Amino acid sequence: MAGPGEFELIREYFSSRFQTGAQAGGVDSGVVLGIGDDCALLTPPRGKMLATSVDTLVADVHFPASADPYRIASRALRVNLSDLAGMNAEPLWFTLALTLPESNAAWLEPFARGLADTARLYGITLIGGDTTKGPLSITVQVTGSCDRALRRDGASAGDHIFVSNQLGAAAAALPIVLEEYEPSEVQQQQADAAFYFPEPQLELARSIGACASAGLDISDGLLADLAHICEASGLGADLKLDTFPIAELAQSMSADAALETALTGGDDYQLCFTVPAKYLDHLQGLQLPITAVGRMREARGIDCFLGGKPWQPRGTGYRHF
Amino acid sequence: MAGPGEFELIREYFSSRFQTGAQAGGVDSGVVLGIGDDCALLTPPRGKMLATSVDTLVADVHFPASADPYRIASRALRVNLSDLAGMNAEPLWFTLALTLPESNAAWLEPFARGLADTARLYGITLIGGDTTKGPLSITVQVTGSCDRALRRDGASAGDHIFVSNQLGAAAAALPIVLEEYEPSEVQQQQADAAFYFPEPQLELARSIGACASAGLDISDGLLADLAHICEASGLGADLKLDTFPIAELAQSMSADAALETALTGGDDYQLCFTVPAKYLDHLQGLQLPITAVGRMREARGIDCFLGGKPWQPRGTGYRHF
Repeated sequence: MAGPGEFELIREYFSSRFQTGAQAGGVDSGVVLGIGDDCALLTPPRGKMLATSVDTLVADVHFPASADPYRIASRALRVNLSDLAGMNAEPLWFTLALTLPESNAAWLEPFARGLADTARLYGITLIGGDTTKGPLSITVQVTGSCDRALRRDGASAGDHIFVSNQLGAAAAALPIVLEEYEPSEVQQQQADAAFYFPEPQLELARSIGACASAGLDISDGLLADLAHICEASGLGADLKLDTFPIAELAQSMSADAALETALTGGDDYQLCFTVPAKYLDHLQGLQLPITAVGRMREARGIDCFLGGKPWQPRGTGYRHF
Repeated sequence: MAGPGEFELIREYFSSRFQTGAQAGGVDSGVVLGIGDDCALLTPPRGKMLATSVDTLVADVHFPASADPYRIASRALRVNLSDLAGMNAEPLWFTLALTLPESNAAWLEPFARGLADTARLYGITLIGGDTTKGPLSITVQVTGSCDRALRRDGASAGDHIFVSNQLGAAAAALPIVLEEYEPSEVQQQQADAAFYFPEPQLELARSIGACASAGLDISDGLLADLAHICEASGLGADLKLDTFPIAELAQSMSADAALETALTGGDDYQLCFTVPAKYLDHLQGLQLPITAVGRMREARGIDCFLGGKPWQPRGTGYRHF
């Protein structure tokens, strides 16, 4: 749509960095024709489902417009890969719809490099895209192959609730990302990692896929996302917060604020999943970086307990970007 | 990413208008799980390739921000469906990434209605999306199934070049769409149809798919898009313009300006395709709305002839939005 001219050049820029045509992926990528025709042509993997998800990142809504383009690209692709992890799907292909105020090589070079590095790291192939002129925004759509989907609607009452790794790092990182105070060097590194390099939990999803009854990636905060599992499964949940895995970056806050940040902070891209009691032994034998945080129940709603007493977030721990 | 709140409501708005889950498509749509989980889950058609394409429409770059939302939605989906036609693929699924300055029911209602009406017309199923806050922009990604792809790189020297229907309507419509002059009622209708309701040439692609050697949809103007076929096929082309199919809306211009608009105007979404001589009789027997406009040749470049003499566009007939 942008017509020949500067944006044509951008397309060529991406085409050269990301291989086109049948060379785009490896032997098994299924890419018959990549960037450069009306459509990409793909051979879907036999006997599997496809899982697909799209996310838009808007400048100054989802990241600072002045942020390092390499990091913006990393975040844009990782956030989408996390949706594949949340479904227990293996990355195959992605598209990029990039809207840019101007064709600017100093911005595009690190952006394309960040995208290529991230794609290589997770074994996903760029198959096409669109480049348009306008306010900076990045839409990535990922597609993966899926054998045993980690849906939201499969939990049963009594299933144990787990989360992966730690929570609260991305929310605690936000004031640092927005340069609202001078962090220590360690804090700066942790904030950078949490906000721009979240780890899509693809490997963990693979490990728990066979025994989890439901699951998703935590993008809006655990309480909000667990509510999605509850709603889709027609259930409620009890959470026991005594050993809740709070990210180090959040632990400089007061204990209550840290816990609340970990429970309601968004953008962590860890997994929340439920496991029937009969698989607990098997799961514990896998020695994964996961923590049991509660159980599903028949009665709707989510109740939190700390030290045996009811505990409620005060709504002060977290803000969105 | 936008978090709970007004944009959650928008998602629910789309979920209710477009059915979710396994009910999303018809029996054969292959939709296992539609809107509402981390990913849509899809069963790809057996033994076929998938064709996929993404396009972004930015307000005041690709359409007037104040345009009727029903028409914006129609254009956004049709422009993408045209890429499926340009590949000779059958529509299956699409996603919508919608960025909006505010949650506004008066805008969203007609937009969702336009999207639903267009999707129903062309038999394509909404399987997911993302809604974010920011400057108005619409990214649609379509996926279709493809047996015999209409690629750009298959033409041979001597192949005849065809275009579908008429060209130049969308470029001639632009001053009317931008309300730069007071058109007649007929002109207003033609401009509206050309700009907001372009017909993706899916049926025509099906008809010519078996005998075309190369092809694409004309989005940047015939000369620019034919150049893509030439480049991909390693060839050039001679165009004979004496019976060139110029859209009625362009015919109020001078003869030269009308021809130039038809050759260089973008956004018509007609097909340009090449056919080996041996299939000409068969093709003519099909009585399709197509016109032979020239032939492919070994020597690179494109030369135009009118009344037996060389003819060149002056670069005055067309502008982009």
